[in-house]
Amino acid sequence: MSRVRVHNFAVSLDGFGTGDGQSLEQPFGHAGGRLLEDFAGTRTFRTIHGESGGTTGIDDAFASTWATGIGAEIMGRNKFGPQRGPWTDDGWKGWWGDDPVFHTPVFVLTHYPRPSLEMDGGTIFHFIDASPADALALAKEAAGGLDVRIGGGPTTVREFLAADLIDSMHLIVAPIVLGRGVRLWDGLEGLEQRFDLEAVSTPSGITHMTFTRTNTEED
Amino acid sequence: MSRVRVHNFAVSLDGFGTGDGQSLEQPFGHAGGRLLEDFAGTRTFRTIHGESGGTTGIDDAFASTWATGIGAEIMGRNKFGPQRGPWTDDGWKGWWGDDPVFHTPVFVLTHYPRPSLEMDGGTIFHFIDASPADALALAKEAAGGLDVRIGGGPTTVREFLAADLIDSMHLIVAPIVLGRGVRLWDGLEGLEQRFDLEAVSTPSGITHMTFTRTNTEED
Repeated sequence: MSRVRVHNFAVSLDGFGTGDGQSLEQPFGHAGGRLLEDFAGTRTFRTIHGESGGTTGIDDAFASTWATGIGAEIMGRNKFGPQRGPWTDDGWKGWWGDDPVFHTPVFVLTHYPRPSLEMDGGTIFHFIDASPADALALAKEAAGGLDVRIGGGPTTVREFLAADLIDSMHLIVAPIVLGRGVRLWDGLEGLEQRFDLEAVSTPSGITHMTFTRTNTEED
Repeated sequence: MSRVRVHNFAVSLDGFGTGDGQSLEQPFGHAGGRLLEDFAGTRTFRTIHGESGGTTGIDDAFASTWATGIGAEIMGRNKFGPQRGPWTDDGWKGWWGDDPVFHTPVFVLTHYPRPSLEMDGGTIFHFIDASPADALALAKEAAGGLDVRIGGGPTTVREFLAADLIDSMHLIVAPIVLGRGVRLWDGLEGLEQRFDLEAVSTPSGITHMTFTRTNTEED
């Protein structure tokens, strides 16, 4: 059965999933590249972004699971771009160039639906105004039996966790204190009771955490 | 030279150092025993509290450094007891019985100074209304060349971190989402730039983090 997964989602020690003040130049606001600093050097991460080289250690093992078996992604509008409110005709097609890293349908949650954007390499951005459950139903249908990735940002991950729609989640705890931004954990008191948790720290300074939902219905 | 240390201080994934609603029955409020649940089973922790048995693995290695070389502790009033405001004559002498675990002078930060309490086993509680720096000066003098432990709670640790008075800190990141309580990290943006950080996860589910201040003046 199709599963709903979060991968490579980074939070700071103080629980922020992105910084304050997102802009075209700073997708993660004042956090800059710090949330994913240690992780961005992995071979998988670099390959996804069209670069060569990179580390092949423990961090890379986690990174490499990101694309496997995924048939669709759901993301929040703030992951797609820095714009707010009604769309303007600014030609924005996401941060990822003409051939985005996803290579699957991607459902962008927005209160302002617009026509889909078909990109090179199999990525199609669909813009929908839907609840987490309804968005997931669409994404599962589009995924053709494969899994659905919840891509972030923190508000989107939090909403899917609150709705108990996530089967597995891989978090990166970055050893930084961001101080401000968008919190992942708000409203999720007792979340750990619904998941089996594991943690492993790696020499890069990251702590990886995996959350696997307990009592999942039988496949 | 005397160092200022934090040990065995637990925070939740969402950064709370204690829960909501402290009371006589619940020193950690709604968190109950969950912040230290995995850690409380160590041999060191159990020995400190007059019990036998316990684990002797990685968690215990961290626990065992708590008392070594410590000559005084500083704690916040809320660690000492659940009372607020002016002291009443209720006979309260802390959570720790007639022979408290400290066996050193302990400086309790309060806006309501009162006479010192001399307990069995070498613990003396001094109640002082002082800034972190002034309290530290008193504690260092009382420590006779040994180190000073900042014992918590989260407000006290945060104030000493903000004043850049802490040389080393051992945190326990407990795999729980508390949702509410007292946050450790508020106002400490960029803290990691002043410390060398290491992390290690243990099979109990805990992640231990050590913060060692960089650029400390030469001893």
